[in-house]
Amino acid sequence: MRQQGQPAIVGIGATEFSKASGRTELRLAVEAVAAALADCGLRPSDVDGLVTFDMDTSPVTEVARYTGMDEIRFFPSTGFGGGGSCSTIELAAMAVTAGTASTVVAYRAFNERSGSRFGQARSVAPQTPPTADHVTRSWTYPFGLMTPASVWAMAARRYMHEYGATSADFGRISVLERQHASTNPAAWFYGRPITLDDHQNSRWIAEPLRLLDCCQETDGGIALVVTSPDRAADLSQRPVSVAAAASGFSRDQQIMTSYSRGRITDTPEMAAVGARLWKQSGLGPADMHAAMLYDHFTPSVLFQLEALGFCPPGEGAEFVASGALAMDGALPLNPHGGQIGEGYMHGMNAITEAVRQLRGTAANQVADPQNILVTAGTAIPTSALILSRTG
Amino acid sequence: MRQQGQPAIVGIGATEFSKASGRTELRLAVEAVAAALADCGLRPSDVDGLVTFDMDTSPVTEVARYTGMDEIRFFPSTGFGGGGSCSTIELAAMAVTAGTASTVVAYRAFNERSGSRFGQARSVAPQTPPTADHVTRSWTYPFGLMTPASVWAMAARRYMHEYGATSADFGRISVLERQHASTNPAAWFYGRPITLDDHQNSRWIAEPLRLLDCCQETDGGIALVVTSPDRAADLSQRPVSVAAAASGFSRDQQIMTSYSRGRITDTPEMAAVGARLWKQSGLGPADMHAAMLYDHFTPSVLFQLEALGFCPPGEGAEFVASGALAMDGALPLNPHGGQIGEGYMHGMNAITEAVRQLRGTAANQVADPQNILVTAGTAIPTSALILSRTG
Repeated sequence: MRQQGQPAIVGIGATEFSKASGRTELRLAVEAVAAALADCGLRPSDVDGLVTFDMDTSPVTEVARYTGMDEIRFFPSTGFGGGGSCSTIELAAMAVTAGTASTVVAYRAFNERSGSRFGQARSVAPQTPPTADHVTRSWTYPFGLMTPASVWAMAARRYMHEYGATSADFGRISVLERQHASTNPAAWFYGRPITLDDHQNSRWIAEPLRLLDCCQETDGGIALVVTSPDRAADLSQRPVSVAAAASGFSRDQQIMTSYSRGRITDTPEMAAVGARLWKQSGLGPADMHAAMLYDHFTPSVLFQLEALGFCPPGEGAEFVASGALAMDGALPLNPHGGQIGEGYMHGMNAITEAVRQLRGTAANQVADPQNILVTAGTAIPTSALILSRTG
Repeated sequence: MRQQGQPAIVGIGATEFSKASGRTELRLAVEAVAAALADCGLRPSDVDGLVTFDMDTSPVTEVARYTGMDEIRFFPSTGFGGGGSCSTIELAAMAVTAGTASTVVAYRAFNERSGSRFGQARSVAPQTPPTADHVTRSWTYPFGLMTPASVWAMAARRYMHEYGATSADFGRISVLERQHASTNPAAWFYGRPITLDDHQNSRWIAEPLRLLDCCQETDGGIALVVTSPDRAADLSQRPVSVAAAASGFSRDQQIMTSYSRGRITDTPEMAAVGARLWKQSGLGPADMHAAMLYDHFTPSVLFQLEALGFCPPGEGAEFVASGALAMDGALPLNPHGGQIGEGYMHGMNAITEAVRQLRGTAANQVADPQNILVTAGTAIPTSALILSRTG
């Protein structure tokens, strides 16, 4: 039955964020899902939809079996790693609105530090026949562009050339996120802020990206429960409304760097997704009371501030330096510490943090937020959400 | 903008079905997508959604680039191989109804014979750490259950024990499908019907499954275009309405065989999906004028006839023997020859055949069909459609 009103996020769950969970990825997924259901008081048998990443190693069938779910009616997956984080909620909300499923759990779990590390060059074992993915990588691997950091480094270098940005400009984002993490007990870097000097003295990972420009590698799991506004009203937590949701990629989109476009510093996919969020919600950048921006590498935050219209092109660094992104600024950035400070969860912990903020239960609470923007990874097919307080 | 009315399939495209395409999987995907767009007179820039299988090696980004598409707004994927075929259309229709995308192309392309063959035992290379998938297979591989045929053989043997079915009962399905293929110029087995003796004399693949109980291994690509009824009305082909669509898996679902269930011959996921189709459409088994049933192995057809309510449990073989599934029967089965006779396209060619039937352009045309059932692979998370004639 088709539902009226915006679907809501009613439950959130997470494991601890660590460097070595000591358990399987499936167990992390099941723990996170169980925690999200406990958070809102639903039983596994209330769930009839499951959404995860196509990269996730815990199949929806196994998560359903180990948690004790019954019939599942909706179980697509999102692609492109962290670009798909917000798509999981978009898909869940679509299914609830369409009546395809009544309650959908989105999850992501991995041992991304103790297991397979995305920051490493992937082995390109000879395969017969080569896939499109192998062919694409064959153009860049021989030249050393083998890791996310190395391809982002090239875009960051170009951005510095075009706009005069410096390593310190990137560093201010890292310092800010570590400050936020330092007062978030769930963060890996709880109690461990850094200075700009620490950033400037950290080693190169891929010039101009230093160690402290890069997100963490983390073991852990995250889950969120999405349901209809009617059902949400009966549950234990204040529902958080999915006010807008969009996914997208743009012409000549490739992965990490779109070499066939005129400019490698543009992220038109994020601009397009943002424009659709504003249109869907009737809100604009000035209506956002916090921003959960995907932060695998610090320059990504600058690219997004500009693509989303928070500041003009090339002025991201000034915007950061102005203090706008601090807890007492106009647009607090990742109050949980983000993927740099809290943990790298392919963007899913940005969504749970937005939910906590809108419930009023965050470790670093923004004063009275009404609307929060959440983005997924960009320079790849991306997605974003506007989440809003209810009641 | 939310759309009124049922979305429609307006374009279909396919490559040839072969044993060695001589081209990449990406090229097959692009050829099929281009053919589907040409079929209905849409341009690549009209497309704003792409759906494929998570197993497909041609990323939506590359298919968009090589066909010349612009912004894409919807691009989830379906899991579980052939179980997801009808889910691609369900997802596309959801996006069109929700207004998330206006025109969505679903595609699947592979070199499944000349490249990676799904019928082979998968190598379980040591990985650190093992995934849920590896763990699951570790329970069956040591006992020889390493291929789809071997796990289906066990269920087929149990079905024979419970209901007294024979190898000849399976064979009648193969003979029927090869008969249909023999008069379909697009089928690999065009002009090559078989007799029941041929079936009975074919070698064991995994007892009680003979070579002629198994679908083909095929290189090729398929694409379908889904759009709103309004847009459909302006295009060159008679639209085919998506009257009902559902996906599902059931309690204790595993892959191919659900060992924790009471009976390995049950496919409750298909029964549940079928029940939802009947409910959504207000139609029942007697209203179906043809059935495109997933036929990777002949016993699967019997399981589905029973799960979907075309005949009582254990009476599938009698139903087949009655002639009901022949071209002049009450429920013609896979008039294109199915995956046994036409080609193995992970179920996607069953959908294109249903479209041709409802347009009135099939090689083996059912007389005046109004509603056609299409199913995906079962004993895994599955999906199904009812497609209906318009106008």
